[in-house]
Amino acid sequence: MARGLAALLALLVSVSVSLPAAAAPADQEGDRIRELPGQPPNVDFSHYSGYVTVNQARGRALFYWLVLWLNGGPGCSSVGYGASEEVGPFRIRPDGKTLYLNKHSWNKAANLLFLESPAGVGFSYSNTTMDLYTGGDAKTALDAYAFLVNWLERFPQYKYREFYIAGESYAGHYVPQLAKLIYEKSKGIQNPAINLKGFVVGNAVTDDYNDYLGTFEYWWSHGLISDSTYHNLKKTCLFDSSEHPSPECVKNLNLASSEEGNIDPYSLYTKPCNSSASLKLGLGGRYPWLSRAYDPCTERYSNIYYNLPEVQTALHANTTGIKYPWKTCSDIVGSYWADSPRSMLPIYHELIAAGIRIWVFSGDTDAVVPITATRYSISALKLPTLMNWYPWYDHGKVGGWSQVYKGLTLVTVAGAGHEVPLHRPRQALILFRHFLKDTPMPTQ
Amino acid sequence: MARGLAALLALLVSVSVSLPAAAAPADQEGDRIRELPGQPPNVDFSHYSGYVTVNQARGRALFYWLVLWLNGGPGCSSVGYGASEEVGPFRIRPDGKTLYLNKHSWNKAANLLFLESPAGVGFSYSNTTMDLYTGGDAKTALDAYAFLVNWLERFPQYKYREFYIAGESYAGHYVPQLAKLIYEKSKGIQNPAINLKGFVVGNAVTDDYNDYLGTFEYWWSHGLISDSTYHNLKKTCLFDSSEHPSPECVKNLNLASSEEGNIDPYSLYTKPCNSSASLKLGLGGRYPWLSRAYDPCTERYSNIYYNLPEVQTALHANTTGIKYPWKTCSDIVGSYWADSPRSMLPIYHELIAAGIRIWVFSGDTDAVVPITATRYSISALKLPTLMNWYPWYDHGKVGGWSQVYKGLTLVTVAGAGHEVPLHRPRQALILFRHFLKDTPMPTQ
Repeated sequence: MARGLAALLALLVSVSVSLPAAAAPADQEGDRIRELPGQPPNVDFSHYSGYVTVNQARGRALFYWLVLWLNGGPGCSSVGYGASEEVGPFRIRPDGKTLYLNKHSWNKAANLLFLESPAGVGFSYSNTTMDLYTGGDAKTALDAYAFLVNWLERFPQYKYREFYIAGESYAGHYVPQLAKLIYEKSKGIQNPAINLKGFVVGNAVTDDYNDYLGTFEYWWSHGLISDSTYHNLKKTCLFDSSEHPSPECVKNLNLASSEEGNIDPYSLYTKPCNSSASLKLGLGGRYPWLSRAYDPCTERYSNIYYNLPEVQTALHANTTGIKYPWKTCSDIVGSYWADSPRSMLPIYHELIAAGIRIWVFSGDTDAVVPITATRYSISALKLPTLMNWYPWYDHGKVGGWSQVYKGLTLVTVAGAGHEVPLHRPRQALILFRHFLKDTPMPTQ
Repeated sequence: MARGLAALLALLVSVSVSLPAAAAPADQEGDRIRELPGQPPNVDFSHYSGYVTVNQARGRALFYWLVLWLNGGPGCSSVGYGASEEVGPFRIRPDGKTLYLNKHSWNKAANLLFLESPAGVGFSYSNTTMDLYTGGDAKTALDAYAFLVNWLERFPQYKYREFYIAGESYAGHYVPQLAKLIYEKSKGIQNPAINLKGFVVGNAVTDDYNDYLGTFEYWWSHGLISDSTYHNLKKTCLFDSSEHPSPECVKNLNLASSEEGNIDPYSLYTKPCNSSASLKLGLGGRYPWLSRAYDPCTERYSNIYYNLPEVQTALHANTTGIKYPWKTCSDIVGSYWADSPRSMLPIYHELIAAGIRIWVFSGDTDAVVPITATRYSISALKLPTLMNWYPWYDHGKVGGWSQVYKGLTLVTVAGAGHEVPLHRPRQALILFRHFLKDTPMPTQ
């Protein structure tokens, strides 16, 4: 491979501490974020950010799990989505300059590592432009693995620690493939540096046939498309690859999209971002009983914040002067995607047999990778059931539903869209804690 | 029929006027509501309420359509639901004593007549207690027809006017059956007193087989029930009557209910009424951008308000001293329901052929008579399509979807539950106006 340097940016957010800060090894100090521009005063955790070169290569710690978070796309930024509007500790205000704390950040339960993946996404780059046009599942997994190996050299305190991978949407491909690679590389090693224990994926692309089947049924059963388009989608798409559909299938997908109209398919029952949406700002804090209000325009603020020079400096990002602005998703990476296996289910079978913990969750108001797609895909695994479908509870209210299979736990989050921790932050943190403990969701 | 007196209470709300009030004929003055206890000062419409005896029997007007509204159950009150939390002009405050105006009341477009139907529901009563235990579709239609004939004698200014029937839920049975009866009684009459032009039903029980099929699919596709219960429901219920299911079917329905847990099946994505729900009160008015907030506890306030002696006096209700309190739904009437035809579709065919306008609407977040049930039922009519499934718009936002068939228009309301005008009042009024004009929902 005559590929040039591919450098991936990662953001590490460690667990909140009330202990006096321990001194970090000197070689990590270069990655330490002193202060993010606009951050609130009450920050009691450490965070680090920097590049790891995955083709050539190069921590202070708490005794907590390390969790790698990946967003999908393909081509979307884990810093823009995962860190900034989902499971990270900071949310960006509408001014695009200041931050506030997410009180349901997952770093209350684990050390979080956000990776901009693959090269070409967010701040991650390659000096070989051709790399952006030749992205694919296999290279993404190899680079992410190389990243982890090198990153653990820089932050050796995280070696041997329980390690988990989490992700959403097309990361439903990244996560199991990376897990499989780690599993294979560690097989037979007594005490592996990357001590993989399990993974959790949400609204995850999993199996093209069953995902298509469930997605079309979801669109119809949620009243988004006509009877005839429902029929034609099943006729023309079911045996296609989701990343490389046939022209006939694309025609019907476009027809479905025009029938759906100008909705937010990622969250059917919340307001889309528009000119009047900003009226809602800040209500979440002032009127806590309106817990379902959220700001649908967060992406706009990310696009301001992460292009501020002082923010890039604080993040040790864009040190090479990338020729394009930071974006939430790269169109190039997304459009030129090469290999995309049609099913992750063989990997599920393999890793379940190997004792890797697998949890799958689904926000049930997402029309992009909907709950029905996930139900069909998981059902196709034909795993024995340990606990049948049941509602799980949070403060006496139904938080969603769950089914525990032998080797896999499926959890839905009621009323949440594609980005579950954005729409249902408290319920998502409960889910994450139960995943880490590997205990079923609460029945009361 | 040796049945005793059955008296039905009706509430008439006429269209808002800015004209000087015309003098109403003297025989209607007894029904005029001078002032409802707790009503706001700015009331610019007339309303009347009183009993019409349908076994023996015994109006000022504006040039507007007359619309009869019916709630379902069977056994639920059109005053408690339709008038007080859906399409009527007044809503009840949490104190159970004062009222505020519903700015999207359907009396902005037509004169509304709310009928407590059948006898035994709400304030409607029978001196023959056995009547409450022998309710059914046929008697309900006959009594409602007798009511209308007698009521038009008291309010003759509404005779010969364009007349429509509207209703929801089990009124999906009442409405077409009453329409058919009126149609048959008027056939061949040049200028009928009840000048039936059409009907509109929402989240309406329509055809038991297709309703069951669609309801089970909705429960599964919305993540409420297990794969196995979904399978078993289809196996045991599909050929049953919805009002008289078999013990096997009932067993699986109960299983489904326990899997669903403590949710509000009438509106999946809003908060159920509980101790903290009252925190939301009044926000709708003070923070208009929070248009999706609504008060889920309205029924509680109705139960206070309509049992106040001064309210009953103002309504000319309960003049005979009914032995039980006013309730939103009568358990007796609901439990002892006799005849319930399995399908309204033959009546649809008959009335479409007769040129009666039929609109069907569906709030798409109702799990009780869900959108999928309605889609299957309407699809079973096999009507030619004039406009295929398309999103309709309100202020640039998708209000729902619609399909125009030859003789029938289907409209969904996005994000609305079982009581569409409660959850989406503005969109419901738009729908009602388009129904009255018989023009398709707006494409922009």
